[in-house]
Amino acid sequence: MPTLDAVALPDHLVADQLRGKIAVVIDILRATTTIVEALNNGVSCVVPVASVDGARVIAHDREDALLCGERGGVRPDGFSLGNSPLEYEPSVINGRVCVLTTTNGTRALHMATAADEVLVGAITNVEALCDWIRRDGRDVVLVCSGTDGRVSFEDCLGAGLIVDRLGYSSSDNAAMMFHAMEGAVERFGGLRYAVESSFHAKRLIGMGFGVDVAFACEAGKSSIVPVFDSVVGEIIAD
Amino acid sequence: MPTLDAVALPDHLVADQLRGKIAVVIDILRATTTIVEALNNGVSCVVPVASVDGARVIAHDREDALLCGERGGVRPDGFSLGNSPLEYEPSVINGRVCVLTTTNGTRALHMATAADEVLVGAITNVEALCDWIRRDGRDVVLVCSGTDGRVSFEDCLGAGLIVDRLGYSSSDNAAMMFHAMEGAVERFGGLRYAVESSFHAKRLIGMGFGVDVAFACEAGKSSIVPVFDSVVGEIIAD
Repeated sequence: MPTLDAVALPDHLVADQLRGKIAVVIDILRATTTIVEALNNGVSCVVPVASVDGARVIAHDREDALLCGERGGVRPDGFSLGNSPLEYEPSVINGRVCVLTTTNGTRALHMATAADEVLVGAITNVEALCDWIRRDGRDVVLVCSGTDGRVSFEDCLGAGLIVDRLGYSSSDNAAMMFHAMEGAVERFGGLRYAVESSFHAKRLIGMGFGVDVAFACEAGKSSIVPVFDSVVGEIIAD
Repeated sequence: MPTLDAVALPDHLVADQLRGKIAVVIDILRATTTIVEALNNGVSCVVPVASVDGARVIAHDREDALLCGERGGVRPDGFSLGNSPLEYEPSVINGRVCVLTTTNGTRALHMATAADEVLVGAITNVEALCDWIRRDGRDVVLVCSGTDGRVSFEDCLGAGLIVDRLGYSSSDNAAMMFHAMEGAVERFGGLRYAVESSFHAKRLIGMGFGVDVAFACEAGKSSIVPVFDSVVGEIIAD
């Protein structure tokens, strides 16, 4: 049986931890949820960029580009779309290239590129993602993005859901995320309420993004498995 | 209300995370459980030392010293006692100085010294420890020791128990450890069985130390709160 490992922050990765493995990058609120939804609704690809200025330069050079993302949860000046998955409507994005920069998720994607394969994981695509991983058969490391360098409970809940669905032999860290997910779902009476107990969910709800938090908790609604080709710099739907 | 934070490994501490706070170092299997038991049974103090050679030098210079500790779970050549709490019987250790070197716990103690106060936490002293912390009133960071640079579930379970008992306002990482503890206790039917699900517990049980694992899970059996004075280099019972 393949093995399953996890880190609560990309900064916790150690040398060779990703070698020969599948990395699943998780930023439930909201980058990886948004990437899944953008590809689900028809962008041709997502180009994750670490900095706002870098995203502006890359988007300027591509005629079909939409400049997307956030800093501090808010859309920067001149950006077409923010980081809310609900903004990515088919009529707006169909066939376009989404150049995306976010505070935590795009950074985690770039920090995971030592893996053989980098997938984008969300609660919304958990079933398709786990099917993909099982068919592939390689070992897996779940890479939670966190928030501003701090562990985010909602990312660990998403990771715990993947641990549950895969049923692989788990490291202690992956097992902890599974037990935390199961314990919190039991205590709060559902995954959405568990996610809403997190620091970052409360902050987003306070900013008026409560609908995004609820959206991010709809388990398995999308069949998209985004794959990040770090050489080309693009995420496409598999 | 004071705040409560946690790290799953001392390597995860970031700048200023400990400043002005109480650090509680946790190495359930077995260093911090052993330190609590050694002080409970009458050693005058514990001197935690990072290296085996360093421990030999320090013990050689003190007439009343007992050379104690492990590498790979086993007592090094020439050491009087290993890292099993059950070896620390009053008749053997009364009034002696315990010079202790272990693979993970003593390292974590030294990595936590940026805190205002460094306490030694175990499941066996959880009630006394939390009473001490509540009386003191400062903010707290739980520092799990891990095993050979990897997150250890049993340390996070111990941390989760402290989060539960303190009832402080918790960071997401501390909250995750609480939910993981609660979920695993529920799933496995008790704290001891949850601890025994961890990688390190299984390894110790395989080496014949199952009785140590059971001992480490006896919540609140000791009223000792060990305090590490990093200037003097000694841990004494408060």
